[in-house]
Amino acid sequence: MERLTAKSNEKIKAAVSIRDSAKLRREQHLFFLEGARLCGDAAENSVRILRSFFTLQALEKYSAQAEKIISRSKENYIITDELAQKLSDTQNSQGIFCVCKEDEKNAGANKIRPDGKYILLENVQDPSNLGAVSRVAEALGIDGMFVCGGCDIYNPKALRASMGSALRLNIVSCPSAVELVKKLNGLGILTLASTPRKDSVVITDVPMDGGVCCVVGNEGNGITEETMSACTHRVTIPMGGRAESLNASTAAAILIWEMKRK
Amino acid sequence: MERLTAKSNEKIKAAVSIRDSAKLRREQHLFFLEGARLCGDAAENSVRILRSFFTLQALEKYSAQAEKIISRSKENYIITDELAQKLSDTQNSQGIFCVCKEDEKNAGANKIRPDGKYILLENVQDPSNLGAVSRVAEALGIDGMFVCGGCDIYNPKALRASMGSALRLNIVSCPSAVELVKKLNGLGILTLASTPRKDSVVITDVPMDGGVCCVVGNEGNGITEETMSACTHRVTIPMGGRAESLNASTAAAILIWEMKRK
Repeated sequence: MERLTAKSNEKIKAAVSIRDSAKLRREQHLFFLEGARLCGDAAENSVRILRSFFTLQALEKYSAQAEKIISRSKENYIITDELAQKLSDTQNSQGIFCVCKEDEKNAGANKIRPDGKYILLENVQDPSNLGAVSRVAEALGIDGMFVCGGCDIYNPKALRASMGSALRLNIVSCPSAVELVKKLNGLGILTLASTPRKDSVVITDVPMDGGVCCVVGNEGNGITEETMSACTHRVTIPMGGRAESLNASTAAAILIWEMKRK
Repeated sequence: MERLTAKSNEKIKAAVSIRDSAKLRREQHLFFLEGARLCGDAAENSVRILRSFFTLQALEKYSAQAEKIISRSKENYIITDELAQKLSDTQNSQGIFCVCKEDEKNAGANKIRPDGKYILLENVQDPSNLGAVSRVAEALGIDGMFVCGGCDIYNPKALRASMGSALRLNIVSCPSAVELVKKLNGLGILTLASTPRKDSVVITDVPMDGGVCCVVGNEGNGITEETMSACTHRVTIPMGGRAESLNASTAAAILIWEMKRK
């Protein structure tokens, strides 16, 4: 394996740019992973790994994961601790990093099942929320997640919070929630706009046997008016107390649970 | 109102210590609040405010909240921007701060209703999880939340994530989850230890008409063996996919929802 030592190395700089720029990730369909667990998950889940970087210590300490990653990655490099620090987004780096290519399936919304269960996040900003929703979506076994605006699922914090589920779940990034909702409506899928507004259908009163997609909006502003209007139903999780709304990930968890609960 | 200007002022130093030290908060039954919304919530919810601090700008900009706070606070001080920066835990400080006394009701577990619905968090470490659970607990209208070990609800990040619900919800801090669970069992309350283990009762199969307390454990290690054994039931949220567990706050959200769902 080639050794990289220069701080100005172009491959290192490119990896840092992908880590830090949502725009670059979106334009180039690339993303960056850090850590033995996440990079190992990528290798196990047939993610296309373009480049991987290891410190010598990491190759030794995480040899099982490293082996899998190396066998799947197009290019592999050994890096110095100094370069690992440059690549790392965490306090205690494990010294393993990958640059990956987003699956083409995620570039479009082609594999939508008319009887599937989906969650759509519109303009959700907090990467922890995004990661937590992906985790619950995978755990409860819905068919996919749409991310429209806001933070992208390949944000390093979102990937960490997802505990690898983002690499296994069917996740589609869409520029426009309205267009997607219209497409789902066309397939006969119920599109449920979640809102704290009390003049909405209680979520337990919606039939969940066919295709359903629940929409969760931005942490501060909720779902946009346009998307709200495009949805077939406005639904709510009944709330008492003086709380005005739920956190985006806890609301999504309850909605996903209701879609899947027998 | 007295003006404080010296950086070495003892009242400022004491407030910072309470903000930063969980040990001090626990020992002195004090906590620290920041921001017009949270401090205003405290005043509205009859929290005992011992001291409040305002910048001149804050007094003007948030006059409605400031008035309420001042009328409820024992001592009020005007502070410089420099001191506000010292007190602030956020990037954009609003220049309003309070030191409050924890309600005695929260020092013990005396107001437990035998038919009530409760959530117990054992050793939950992430303040965002704590705040999110408090928010969903209030929103869905359960009777209280027990915090045993881990992060305390008066951690500044937990308070912020709670959106003020931590000041309104009945929250009891207990040193030992095991003792509390035994006490709840004695009152005839079902104590449900949540776990990803598949040999557990599915949460939807538990009768929820009487008193119920769901227990959620630490993010990495789950519920301790001792507490698990003390609980009357071991319950699980059925999971598919390859996810091994849910995030603590999304798991708690689903459990709280199941306790309250008709």
